[in-house]
Amino acid sequence: MTLLIGGVELGGTKCVLAVAKSPIDILYRAVIPTGNPQKTLQGIFDFFSGYELNRIGIGTFGPVILDSESKNYGLLISESKKGWKGINLFKEFSSNSKAKINIDTDVNAAAIGEYNYGAGRSCQALIYITIGTGIGGGVLVDGKSYTGNFHLEMGHIQVPNPDNFEGVCRIHGDCWEGLASGPSIEARWGVSPLELPESHQAWEKEAELLASGIVSIIANHSPDRVILGGGVMKQKHLFSMIRSKVGEMWNDYTPLASPSELIVEPGLGSDSGIIGALVLGIGGPAQI
Amino acid sequence: MTLLIGGVELGGTKCVLAVAKSPIDILYRAVIPTGNPQKTLQGIFDFFSGYELNRIGIGTFGPVILDSESKNYGLLISESKKGWKGINLFKEFSSNSKAKINIDTDVNAAAIGEYNYGAGRSCQALIYITIGTGIGGGVLVDGKSYTGNFHLEMGHIQVPNPDNFEGVCRIHGDCWEGLASGPSIEARWGVSPLELPESHQAWEKEAELLASGIVSIIANHSPDRVILGGGVMKQKHLFSMIRSKVGEMWNDYTPLASPSELIVEPGLGSDSGIIGALVLGIGGPAQI
Repeated sequence: MTLLIGGVELGGTKCVLAVAKSPIDILYRAVIPTGNPQKTLQGIFDFFSGYELNRIGIGTFGPVILDSESKNYGLLISESKKGWKGINLFKEFSSNSKAKINIDTDVNAAAIGEYNYGAGRSCQALIYITIGTGIGGGVLVDGKSYTGNFHLEMGHIQVPNPDNFEGVCRIHGDCWEGLASGPSIEARWGVSPLELPESHQAWEKEAELLASGIVSIIANHSPDRVILGGGVMKQKHLFSMIRSKVGEMWNDYTPLASPSELIVEPGLGSDSGIIGALVLGIGGPAQI
Repeated sequence: MTLLIGGVELGGTKCVLAVAKSPIDILYRAVIPTGNPQKTLQGIFDFFSGYELNRIGIGTFGPVILDSESKNYGLLISESKKGWKGINLFKEFSSNSKAKINIDTDVNAAAIGEYNYGAGRSCQALIYITIGTGIGGGVLVDGKSYTGNFHLEMGHIQVPNPDNFEGVCRIHGDCWEGLASGPSIEARWGVSPLELPESHQAWEKEAELLASGIVSIIANHSPDRVILGGGVMKQKHLFSMIRSKVGEMWNDYTPLASPSELIVEPGLGSDSGIIGALVLGIGGPAQI
């Protein structure tokens, strides 16, 4: 009997689902909106109900308890996504499936996907940052999630805010996510980022804010590579602007890889997260 | 024959030296100013010349190459301390002593001292930050230095700078070190921090700046504990101010230890670094 793996990338806006024979051999997939928990979970279980899954890997938005020894493993502990505080993903999935379940953050899952099959191969210290509805970051050391005693929340670092924009983070106002996520661009300029032309001053500002945060992450992790994904980074012209500003700001203080090696696009396009969730499904890698 | 360990804490202002039977059984010690490299190294070797050392542990300011496989192991690569760029500590010590030599950053050494004998015992994710002439931070995961592909330089993160103070960092101007180190307090208020009374508004500003950086470090590492050392933190009233501001800024986003468990004074007073250097001397711990 073939081993069947279920993959779930539970994001703030949408939930990507896959049934696969291996992380890069996906048989069936679906995307459903992330709405209220009841409806969203029902949608997930409906999709999976047609398959006999042996294992399920989940990459989820946080904050979520990742300690698999904890009785609260899989519990979403904050209202970062309205209605989800108190939902325990491990319990929900366990009561609905006999599959072995493995949970990590959505950004760690994306980093894991990229480390195994994408732009992060062989990186000893790998960062994946998504800039979209929110900002989140995952760190892998030798392919393993670096979680500290909980998990990282790199989107909520503090960054310079010279024009005192109030920011849009529901928890912190003007943290990095509050100042540089997709919704913050819309709040600042009154136009969706999708409609802003490449020449708009918004992108200079956005590149500056993103570079500030990336410099702080470099100072905190000394990475080989920083992969930038998420909806905002579909604006490809941001890459060269960010590379150049990070170089100026860091000012050669410690040796970095060349700009185009250090700051890169995902190798798996939009599939980093779901492929990483499937890697989690097959049991790897552990956290440090 | 008793094993004799040499310890060196090479800081930006002074160099602490010790000869010991074990990291907490120090037989002889000395403090010399960190001046130009020739004079300082001569002072170190003069002090050690009376002892037959088996091992030497060095905690040094950076940026320094820590990869012991590299032919440049021990090389100081930046002019963070005037005159020291290009000095190779491993070569200097090797040509002067038969002892086995082990090098880490000064802040990792301090964290190692605290993890083994001080306020960081049993911490899975431990941060040590020094706020003095400069700002630096070391991170240990299960007692091992977390260095990424080089080593961290957490003092050089970017932080909010609402009053656009130009900062004093020689490399970055208004990075965290540039805004919140001891010399920046003096540059901002025109008075040495030692002469500022507890009621001076400088401390409110300093606590705010330090809390900003600590919040970013929490978001990047999810630590059990953050130990704050260095000359500026001899102003003990800063601790409660910082604890309260970190709590306000983080806003319970992820679970933290109670404020007085999370942010603490060094358990070893001013000896964290030299004791950690001696732990390095006896061969532990390795980096991850």
